[in-house]
Amino acid sequence: MRSFKVIRDPEAFQLLADETRRRIIYLLRVKEMTVAQIAEELKLTPQAIYHHIRKLKDADMVEVAREERVDHFIETYYQATAEMFNLAHGEAGSAKVMEQEVREALEALGKLGLKAKVDADVVSKVVELIRCMKEPDADSPITERVNELGDVSYLGKQELLEFISLMTISDKEFEDFLKNYRELRKTLRSIVAEPIQVPAKA
Amino acid sequence: MRSFKVIRDPEAFQLLADETRRRIIYLLRVKEMTVAQIAEELKLTPQAIYHHIRKLKDADMVEVAREERVDHFIETYYQATAEMFNLAHGEAGSAKVMEQEVREALEALGKLGLKAKVDADVVSKVVELIRCMKEPDADSPITERVNELGDVSYLGKQELLEFISLMTISDKEFEDFLKNYRELRKTLRSIVAEPIQVPAKA
Repeated sequence: MRSFKVIRDPEAFQLLADETRRRIIYLLRVKEMTVAQIAEELKLTPQAIYHHIRKLKDADMVEVAREERVDHFIETYYQATAEMFNLAHGEAGSAKVMEQEVREALEALGKLGLKAKVDADVVSKVVELIRCMKEPDADSPITERVNELGDVSYLGKQELLEFISLMTISDKEFEDFLKNYRELRKTLRSIVAEPIQVPAKA
Repeated sequence: MRSFKVIRDPEAFQLLADETRRRIIYLLRVKEMTVAQIAEELKLTPQAIYHHIRKLKDADMVEVAREERVDHFIETYYQATAEMFNLAHGEAGSAKVMEQEVREALEALGKLGLKAKVDADVVSKVVELIRCMKEPDADSPITERVNELGDVSYLGKQELLEFISLMTISDKEFEDFLKNYRELRKTLRSIVAEPIQVPAKA
């Protein structure tokens, strides 16, 4: 199993919002399992598990580890593709999904006692800024080579990826990133009446 | 189980560098288990598992879920404290550990075909910058209240935490952050002979 994998599926965020699917992934990070074994472990029907596995497989989060012949049929063992999924934001086609995520997060501000004015303009502006701030090298060949480093720890690899990204982007890309970051803060602060203090208790 | 937990243990990074400990955490995110059950699942001795569990418990990554009386002894069931651990960098006492991490990541640049000059000065400068860039509100009361939001998804909560952090830091803190970010990039680029291109293949 790899240390990390860049997940490009625009639905990744929604796939991982489901608790059962996350539990399946945790199990498949520990060992290879069949649909029947997972179903027994999670006390769900094989049909339900199979449905989830197919979706996770389509999104490259789960893969076939091996197949075993038992009597006259074949049992398929699955495993997770990586220990950590780096979700690639900013993919073409994912704008709608991101809009939903961002809206969800912004609307939750209200539940924390902040009066936030969330409208379509604000949401699409935040989405656009986040898409622009996407790290450029998420899926470059270097990413794969970091994965293959034998003696660097799991979290060390994440740190290394960030360092490499910071070293390899151009001055212009970096300055644009900072500019977008500033703009994102400004936009977020503009939606609340009193932007500074988040109350500790509602 | 909570969505996330801020882990303040300075050893957290090292604890998670161990594959067996990560596998234990994955299992304990799926269900409550005893030391004996984990040992059987991972084909290791209960003694070895107990040793890991104690360390993970000390670091607040694992906790006792419940105790069950069986005949005349008590069985302890463990669970993970959260689905995602947010490691609090920049804690007092963790400088030494961070130095090790950063050195490991920087030295790995060489294995990717980059001639990087990594000395003690560079390592301590990078560590200092990362410590200064730590998000200020990692462990504020608001963090706990985000955790408790019922209808916000697992990854939506992470996004919300970032938004809140960005909205609540002062202008000065934000500008300092950007300054440190710039300085970090400059420092990283200074250690390689040809700072721009990371070769795609060695």
